[in-house]
Amino acid sequence: MAVYTDVSDEELEAFLATYDIGSLLSCKGIAEGVENSNFLLHAEKGNFILTIYEKRVETSDLPFFLGLMNHLAGKGIRCPTPIPARNGSMLGTLRGKPAAIVSFLEGMSVRHPQVRHCAALGSALAGLHLAGRDFTLPRPNALSIKSFRPLLEASGPRADEVQPGLSADLSRVLDQLEAEWPSSLPSGVIHADVFPDNVFFIGKELSGFIDFYFACNDAFAYDIAICLNAWCFEADGSFNITKARALLQAYAGIRPLDPAELAALPVLARGSAMRFLLTRLYDWLNQPPGALVRPKNPLEYWTKLRFHRDLTSAAAYGIDL
Amino acid sequence: MAVYTDVSDEELEAFLATYDIGSLLSCKGIAEGVENSNFLLHAEKGNFILTIYEKRVETSDLPFFLGLMNHLAGKGIRCPTPIPARNGSMLGTLRGKPAAIVSFLEGMSVRHPQVRHCAALGSALAGLHLAGRDFTLPRPNALSIKSFRPLLEASGPRADEVQPGLSADLSRVLDQLEAEWPSSLPSGVIHADVFPDNVFFIGKELSGFIDFYFACNDAFAYDIAICLNAWCFEADGSFNITKARALLQAYAGIRPLDPAELAALPVLARGSAMRFLLTRLYDWLNQPPGALVRPKNPLEYWTKLRFHRDLTSAAAYGIDL
Repeated sequence: MAVYTDVSDEELEAFLATYDIGSLLSCKGIAEGVENSNFLLHAEKGNFILTIYEKRVETSDLPFFLGLMNHLAGKGIRCPTPIPARNGSMLGTLRGKPAAIVSFLEGMSVRHPQVRHCAALGSALAGLHLAGRDFTLPRPNALSIKSFRPLLEASGPRADEVQPGLSADLSRVLDQLEAEWPSSLPSGVIHADVFPDNVFFIGKELSGFIDFYFACNDAFAYDIAICLNAWCFEADGSFNITKARALLQAYAGIRPLDPAELAALPVLARGSAMRFLLTRLYDWLNQPPGALVRPKNPLEYWTKLRFHRDLTSAAAYGIDL
Repeated sequence: MAVYTDVSDEELEAFLATYDIGSLLSCKGIAEGVENSNFLLHAEKGNFILTIYEKRVETSDLPFFLGLMNHLAGKGIRCPTPIPARNGSMLGTLRGKPAAIVSFLEGMSVRHPQVRHCAALGSALAGLHLAGRDFTLPRPNALSIKSFRPLLEASGPRADEVQPGLSADLSRVLDQLEAEWPSSLPSGVIHADVFPDNVFFIGKELSGFIDFYFACNDAFAYDIAICLNAWCFEADGSFNITKARALLQAYAGIRPLDPAELAALPVLARGSAMRFLLTRLYDWLNQPPGALVRPKNPLEYWTKLRFHRDLTSAAAYGIDL
């Protein structure tokens, strides 16, 4: 959480002169977004977020991300909406880096989601999936099952520094995942990072999604599996079936789940746990000196992975088969 | 620039329930303020800044700082204004630390102040000095001339790591400063940290002062000397007499300077340069591992100090004696 690129008032003024948002009243660097520099702008025409894309985001992916947010907003999905410059472009350049302005989304993320938050998330996620169906730009999932083996190898035997035997354990689980991974599930645009930080609420209402910088094409049910891991475990590592049921039932109320999707949920949940475990493991073992961001504990996802490994069906997620 | 204390939505809601600002629509940690954690709150009744005071601020000083902002705002000085809780208190507790809510001040700091910014600063600073005259809480300057010797000794011979011979050079300059320091200049509440980051502008207008956490009782002309150092040098270390003249003339237009103040300006300017040199030197030599804040180069202030050392009168600041 940091601002990586420092912008002077003159640079900002010159950049904003290419937009039609009125003159600037204030600009605060905000401690949000691990990957990019974000600024909250108050301009005459409202509040906006200015994002400067840092090196972890591929510039070639930006038309997908910005185009998707624009498409979703057009379908009534509440999310930050790119503001085009006067020349129509959603993407500009500031201090030599790609930069965009999006609308400001009101709301707060919840630290400890309750059952009602999980239900609201289920409906909204189904709505997001439906709204993305006719978005035509493609973006393969860079963190799909195919990436897991190279990611595991990048950490290699050093995984055992985190927990003795972890490297071999992960390799075994991955063998099984690769063997069982489903292929022809209903697919489309998924958010792929639906953690509580990226979903805003105002009071009891879900006010929208933010941070679409992992969005890609993959199985819709994989996005649900990510949510089961990120929203339905308690701080002590136990799984809350009531939250999972609320999430799944609300989702299915908007976009019915087919039997193949339900059957695949345990393996997708293991896969999603593996994905976050592997990226956290890599970040944990490769902390740059003086890093501004404290890496997250990879073992949280090992606990989650083991829960799903013992399941024989999606019944444990509280859904009627 | 960082958020040191992490606050959950539940903790924030419980804290805000003790205030009358309406329900919360968003909260962003902002990258502003080296010493404290700051959050921009958008609530039903407007925008506010929530500050959680970290350990570098003395809790016993908070009634002075908050009382001063409240006093100045009551006199029409534009600055963040403390919002009292329902029980009337300007100071609360969040996550076991002192915390306060102040009004949000619109405006932007300028990276490269121009002559017109210096003129606006001069008038506003004089207004601030006049408005503080009947504020009765006292706070001695913790970074006055009396603190310089112990500060220099805290860095000691390690100063030479920054520049060979610096330790002896500073000791010699300090001997002279202590001998020449003026005693009975007109005094009152000064801001004591009037750097361009702490002064906001909207377009050409100065919109207010922020960050009163060094404010204290000392000579008014010492505050002016701080401004000469922070606003009137160019990036290459040269002194811009046009900016200094604009600042001083505008100041004197609101609060006339007496001959003793004018005569003391060179020694006060050396003293102010010494103060920032010494704290930067200490921070430079004592960077905690993994620090979030990159320390500022102390030698910038050595260059400034040497400029003032060669002056025989305030004429070099562009003011008619």
